[in-house]
Formats: sequence, structure tokens, C-alpha cells
Amino acid sequence: MTDITMIRAAQARLEGHARRTPLLTSPFLDEIAGRRVLVKPECLQHTGSFKYRGARSALSALDPDVRARGVIAFSSGNHAQGVALAAREFGVPAVIIMPSDAPRTKIDNTGALGAEVVLYDRAGEDRDAIGDRLSAERGLTLIKPFDEPQVIAGQGTTGLEIAEEAAALGIETADVLVCCGGGGLTSGIALALEADAPGLRARPVEPEGFDDVARSLRHGRIERNATSAGGLCDAIVTPQPGALTFPIMHRLCGPGIVVSDDEALHAMALAFQRLKVVAEPGGAVALAAALFHADETEGDTVICTISGGNVDADVFTTALTRFG
Amino acid sequence: MTDITMIRAAQARLEGHARRTPLLTSPFLDEIAGRRVLVKPECLQHTGSFKYRGARSALSALDPDVRARGVIAFSSGNHAQGVALAAREFGVPAVIIMPSDAPRTKIDNTGALGAEVVLYDRAGEDRDAIGDRLSAERGLTLIKPFDEPQVIAGQGTTGLEIAEEAAALGIETADVLVCCGGGGLTSGIALALEADAPGLRARPVEPEGFDDVARSLRHGRIERNATSAGGLCDAIVTPQPGALTFPIMHRLCGPGIVVSDDEALHAMALAFQRLKVVAEPGGAVALAAALFHADETEGDTVICTISGGNVDADVFTTALTRFG
Repeated sequence: MTDITMIRAAQARLEGHARRTPLLTSPFLDEIAGRRVLVKPECLQHTGSFKYRGARSALSALDPDVRARGVIAFSSGNHAQGVALAAREFGVPAVIIMPSDAPRTKIDNTGALGAEVVLYDRAGEDRDAIGDRLSAERGLTLIKPFDEPQVIAGQGTTGLEIAEEAAALGIETADVLVCCGGGGLTSGIALALEADAPGLRARPVEPEGFDDVARSLRHGRIERNATSAGGLCDAIVTPQPGALTFPIMHRLCGPGIVVSDDEALHAMALAFQRLKVVAEPGGAVALAAALFHADETEGDTVICTISGGNVDADVFTTALTRFG
Repeated sequence: MTDITMIRAAQARLEGHARRTPLLTSPFLDEIAGRRVLVKPECLQHTGSFKYRGARSALSALDPDVRARGVIAFSSGNHAQGVALAAREFGVPAVIIMPSDAPRTKIDNTGALGAEVVLYDRAGEDRDAIGDRLSAERGLTLIKPFDEPQVIAGQGTTGLEIAEEAAALGIETADVLVCCGGGGLTSGIALALEADAPGLRARPVEPEGFDDVARSLRHGRIERNATSAGGLCDAIVTPQPGALTFPIMHRLCGPGIVVSDDEALHAMALAFQRLKVVAEPGGAVALAAALFHADETEGDTVICTISGGNVDADVFTTALTRFG
């Protein structure tokens, strides 16, 4: 199980590789939220999302002989790019299994980062069977997207940075709003805050219709979404919280917050206008919660992540046209 | 005259106020340029451009009694917002004289930052006369946008950071491409590099039709633009290099580079796609030079600034539609 020792070890392994993202602010956002808003823009991380941290953490923790045989991942998005880049940095093969209907830019990017992309037909082919066969044939190691201790440890390094940056600003208590899919980033941050900033509390934020974590936390047991894919915020949509991530979130997190797709688009437009960073819809839900659900948080400061910025131009343009 | 001692003193005064911007990279940009590209995104600076550094430097260098009477600036853009925020932080009045046809968002933002905005009619009113009258009546101190030693010193702190970051990466020689209007940022960076990274060389980058600095450097004397305002890259358009900035640039800078408006828009789209930051057209010219004028630079690494991100949604959408 991931603990603070593993997160600190991951941070040491990521030193000089993962980018330390700054904390951004804007008086205009403070005014909307009615309190100080601090934004951790992981869209500025390598590959455009926090996923690189977990991928690099997992690959760097592998035995070199095992790693040399290569890694494999299932992903249609940010995890794919994180694993592809980390594998390229180590000079080892990466196979990414993607649905054939994934956005062309994500397929192209993953391939351009040096990974072998294997496409499968969602309707007619068994993704896991393909993965099992390739892994057995080539001795590849599976890098899961969130329910994997070293991945959680890597994402937790974001929390170590938040704790340090908050302390430098004299912030002792605050809600830390985290864009939440399977819970890798949320649980990692929660563990880091528990150790280094116990007055800061992680709060998962999800899009409407995919609020499995909020419901699971409320009911104290893992619940599933009615639908498990699609939606504007696709980057953070998962069927249910992870078997490893949920107990951590249940022990440490405050209640989940749920935002609408329109609120996410509005937050994207404000991140463009006031912070000059690019957020993808799923990456903007925590900022949306900070700005538009202020009544659900407490204190004079709120901290929120922007988890990624891998958004197509047409979706971004929609956000600017409607809310710019 | 600005020198390295003044720049270091400005850095000390800006400590805890100006944001230290990270150096961003993308393997996709490296591939386009055919070499490593390092990007200093000053669009992430407070108020969305490097101008805050110079404004804060100038205000913090004033005698407190003088500062308390307030400051005045002429600007339709980024300098206005930098001065407004710095004045608000010191709790002193700021008067910004803007043309009545300036973009509404820039007028609104400057006012929202607490400045008193005085609009004048470009055709029928004398801007300088209005400024002189207000300054005399209220004892306001004029903060010039670039031809002012403490402003140059503040912009130069960007160069101190670049020098330090390049050294950390083991970079000893590189061209540093700087978005250039009046030359405050370019001359400040050039002075900082001369002291702290003598193998790095500042290179001004301008948009076509407004290449006064490139021509002035080539001919060894100050030359003017045929037109002194307008154009897509309005944020960095000035009539001619400054009386203080030109001698510094002439002594220290490599030749200027000139990019087209289309290249600036294309660079904006690539900054969106690959770096997840928002660049305004004038703020994207140095990145455009790095990517599309590789034959005009030397070495295996090129460093470039993104000087600002204050762009309206419609211009940004145009860049994404055409080049996204």
C-alpha cells in the first residue's frame, strides 16, 4: 500500500524529471470565489497532465531487468502519453492499447512519443485478452492507470508540492479540490497532505453523471456509475473508484463535489482569460468547484488542481465562445 | 543607466511578489525546430505579462513619500495592468491614460485592478497634455513603459532566471529570443545574460512591418516604423527603440529576427497544443522565430520568451481554427 515513505521516494526518483508546477492566482478569480483561490496547473506537466508523475514513478520503481522488457498500458488518453514518455526516457518499449475510436490526436501523440499503439475494436474485441497475450509473449509489465501503489505515490508528489507551497504562504487550513477519476491523484494528494499539511483536506471533484467517488464516499462503499465512458469530461471518467484508492479517500477526504459540464466549460474560459493556461474539461472541474460551488467549501483560501490540458481545439473554442 | 547591480537589486525587491515562471519544453516543438526549445512563459506572470516585473520594480524604487502621491502611465495594454496591480499592492493611486478606442476588456481589467482610467480621444486630444496636467495637479510620478532604468531592471530579472535555469540544465551557449517592442525586456535580459551567462545571447524578435529594432541594430542608429500602431501583434508595437534601451541592445544583442503574423498565430496554436499556455500574438513572435526561423539561429538549444497572454477569445479562436 502507498504510504508517505513511498511518496517521498517517488519524489526523489522524479527529481529532475517531473516539472514542479507553480501555484497560480488571479484577483479576478478570488473575486468570483469570494476567497483566495490558488491553482496548481498540472496541465503544465510533461505530456500535459499529472499522469506523467505516476507513470515515471511506476517505471522508475521497476527492477531494471523487468523494465527493459517493456511496459504495457490500457488508455485512450493522458495515462497513455505519460507511460509513453516515461518509457522513452528509460529507453524501453511501451505498448499502449487504445480503442480504435479514440481521438486521432491522442493516438498520434502517443505514437509520436515512441510507443507502439495497438488499436482494438471496442465492440468486437476483448481488450484484456489482447493485453494478456502481448504481455505473455513479450514479458511486458502492466502499468495500471490509478489502482497501483507506485502510480498513486507518483501522483502524491503533487500533494507534497502543494503542502510546501501552502506552508510558504502561511496557509494552515484549506480545502484542496482535486479533479477525480479513479482516485489516483486524489488519494496520493490526500496521503501527502496528511503527513505534511494536516490542516489541508483533499476533496474529490467530479462531473455530473459520473459522481461515483462522491456517492461512494457518502455511502461508505464503492459504487459504480450508470454509464462508464463518454461525457465532456472524458479524461476523468472511470466506472468506479479503485480498490486501493477508495479506502485512502474514505479515510482522508472531505465530501465530493459535483459540477456541471457548463461549469467546467466556464472554468476553462476563465483559466484562459485569467491564468493563461489551457485546461481540458475534466481538468477544469476542480477550478469550477472553487469558483461556482463556494458554498460547499470552507475557509478563506481554497486550493485546486488543473489536472490536464489535452483538449482539442474545437472543444476549447466552444468554451471560449460560450463563456469567453 | 541600468546595470547588473540594479537588476539584482530589483530581483531582491520583487522577491515574494513577481512569480518565478518555469521553463517549459515539448518534444513536439523540439522536432519542429530541429533542436531543443526552452520556453520562458511570462504569460504566467501576474497580470498576464512580464510588464508587472518592471512596474513593480519602478514603484518599489520610488521614495515612499513620492510613491504615496501616486503614479501615472500611458498604456492601452499590458503596462497599464502591471502598473495598476503594483500600485494597488503598495496602496497608492494609479492613473492610467488610455485611448478611448482601446479594447473594452483591457480598459475594464485596468479599472478592476483599482486604477483610475482616464480615456482620451486619439484624434482630438493631446495625451501628453492630459498627463502633464494630472501629474502637476496631483504630484503623480510617470512610470514609462520601457525607457526607464528601473523598468529595464525589473524586466531584466527575467534574464537572471533564464541564466540560472540554463546553468541548471548545463547550457552554456544559446540564442535567447525575446519578443521586442520598445526594448525594455530585451535590453534587461541582455544585461542579465552578459553578467550571469555570457554564452547566452539575446536576440530581439519583431512582427513584419514593425521591425524598427532589427533595422536599427543593422544600421547602428535608431530607426522608426512607417506606422507606429496597430497590427495583430499590437502588444509589442512601438514607434522606435528607446533612447536607453537601444544602446544596450546595440552593444549586446545578436541580429533581430522578423516573423509574419501567420507565423505568430501558428506559434500561438502550438503553445496551446504542446505547452498548454495562452500566448497573445505579440507574445508568440519569439516562439515563432524559434520554430519557423531555425536557420537564423545557431546551436543545439534555443531559448525563447512568451512575453504575454492577454489576447481576446476571438483572436485566439482564429489561431486555433487556422493552425490547431
